[in-house]
Amino acid sequence: MNSSPAADTDALPPLPTLADIEDAAARLSGLAVYTPLIESPALNDICGGRLLIKAEMLQRTGSFKFRGAYNRISRLDEAEREPGIIAYSSGNHGQAVAAVGNMLGISTTVVMPADAPRLKLDATRSHGAEVITYDRATETREDVTAGIMAKSGATLIPPFDDPLIIAGQGTVGLEIADQAAEMDAMPDAVLVPCSGGGLIAGTATAIATRHPETEIYAVEPEAFDDTARSLASGRREAVEPGGVSFCDALLVPRPGRITFAINAERLAGAITVADDAVAAAMATAFRHLKLVVEPGGAVALAAVLTGRFDCRGKTVAVVCSGGNVDAETFGAALRQVEP
Amino acid sequence: MNSSPAADTDALPPLPTLADIEDAAARLSGLAVYTPLIESPALNDICGGRLLIKAEMLQRTGSFKFRGAYNRISRLDEAEREPGIIAYSSGNHGQAVAAVGNMLGISTTVVMPADAPRLKLDATRSHGAEVITYDRATETREDVTAGIMAKSGATLIPPFDDPLIIAGQGTVGLEIADQAAEMDAMPDAVLVPCSGGGLIAGTATAIATRHPETEIYAVEPEAFDDTARSLASGRREAVEPGGVSFCDALLVPRPGRITFAINAERLAGAITVADDAVAAAMATAFRHLKLVVEPGGAVALAAVLTGRFDCRGKTVAVVCSGGNVDAETFGAALRQVEP
Repeated sequence: MNSSPAADTDALPPLPTLADIEDAAARLSGLAVYTPLIESPALNDICGGRLLIKAEMLQRTGSFKFRGAYNRISRLDEAEREPGIIAYSSGNHGQAVAAVGNMLGISTTVVMPADAPRLKLDATRSHGAEVITYDRATETREDVTAGIMAKSGATLIPPFDDPLIIAGQGTVGLEIADQAAEMDAMPDAVLVPCSGGGLIAGTATAIATRHPETEIYAVEPEAFDDTARSLASGRREAVEPGGVSFCDALLVPRPGRITFAINAERLAGAITVADDAVAAAMATAFRHLKLVVEPGGAVALAAVLTGRFDCRGKTVAVVCSGGNVDAETFGAALRQVEP
Repeated sequence: MNSSPAADTDALPPLPTLADIEDAAARLSGLAVYTPLIESPALNDICGGRLLIKAEMLQRTGSFKFRGAYNRISRLDEAEREPGIIAYSSGNHGQAVAAVGNMLGISTTVVMPADAPRLKLDATRSHGAEVITYDRATETREDVTAGIMAKSGATLIPPFDDPLIIAGQGTVGLEIADQAAEMDAMPDAVLVPCSGGGLIAGTATAIATRHPETEIYAVEPEAFDDTARSLASGRREAVEPGGVSFCDALLVPRPGRITFAINAERLAGAITVADDAVAAAMATAFRHLKLVVEPGGAVALAAVLTGRFDCRGKTVAVVCSGGNVDAETFGAALRQVEP
């Protein structure tokens, strides 16, 4: 299908630079939430280091995805907007694309798995998008999307493997660098949830340009450790089939071409965390940070709390990337820790 | 008892001024969290106005109470510190006093109802305070506290009816004024949870001095509408006995002398909300703000969401004053709205 990612042998587009990220930041100013970088004395005590929590659950549409979606969609010309836009998404990218489509008056279709969290399905519809569901066991989202595009001619908004999407997500890194400086903090490390790799590729580009000595780590669910495997082998590896995780936002099985080209260069490493550690991190965020973090948004915090990343004596920025979680899933995570 | 509030016929101490609040802000700088003023496009859409949420659940110890406690305790001289400090509290003031006592190396006792939320009892103990519980049905906290003070000579840290406590809480208002200005927002109104009245007295003093045209409203649980009754009659009135509310932080039955002297002068009015509207507000904060708000912290948000305060076309700052809520109570509130 013509919407599929380019083959590995195709040339890569120019990778986004700090200037591209600063350009995205200017475009997002006043539209995206400049999310706070939160320090909690209680959490510092627990970890024995200085934690700076980038609270992207407070972002418009409840996750960082609004940043990249707006940076990409707002640059479409009239001919690209006219047939509408389309996205496939487990939920957060779809919500963001729907919200941006709504803001800019563009007809929007979002292809989502039928078993996506109801909160995410409902929220996407509430932004006025048409939601098409598919069965993850028998169909691929790429095929379903290609079928719709063949009929409508809609413009695909890719979830991560795109320079403008990556530059938009990179504004998270830009803000962390600025906010940490205001707090007289120099992060020794930045930990970022990772699935397709757009958020971390952009964040790493911004941070590495400003503070080359800061180490950037990807954090993944154990069963979706494709970036860890790919960093180890030096090329894009897929996860073992059949893996499961309740981190519904982090189920991409293989890094993107563009994102991995950046991440192979920029990352200090990748860390994996178990689902029960993620639930414990959600409970800790509830109890000590008073923030709602969704499973996929809590993996970097879980890496710190489990000691998978040892932050004793260090200053560590931790991206909590989203908060779109059903009351039922959230309650179950809290009960798992404190029944 | 010599620790009881002064009789109504006694002269009032000088009421705190904007200068006192600015002095408290300087003292708290770098110790209290400068909590964000959060705007949510989704919530603005729901309310038809511009809401600015002052997120005090992100404050040290999970509520605004740290501000007043630190401003008061840090000014004690050696003779006052030596026998230790004591506070009575349903939870948030006690946690704050315990945390400040711990920071300053002062032995701390907190008298709490035996039926206070376990989270609050545990958190107070975790700061190293000795917690003495009493039975709300058969004992008064004032009597229990007086008994301990008679033995130990400990210095009482009052929960609200004290100029330095009020000035500390008033830094919330100072920050709202500064943050709203940075956001090019001029609040038409500020809504503040109210129990003893310290938070709103300080906040009203700060806001009224900066922006005399901004209206300040107290929000109370229906069964604890003592400030509404007192504003109506012009003197301090107690609630009807036997009332219940799940807003455990807002169960003071009668306004303070000093706080009411300020509030009678400064407030535009008082609004009451039902417990089920408070639970709905907690669920809305979970879903759209991704913030954990405790029942007592959510009353002002409930006033806006129920339309008890009509914010259509207005800019309204809403103080969410705390987030210290058990997982069980929080889950029950979410289920009440979306079973």
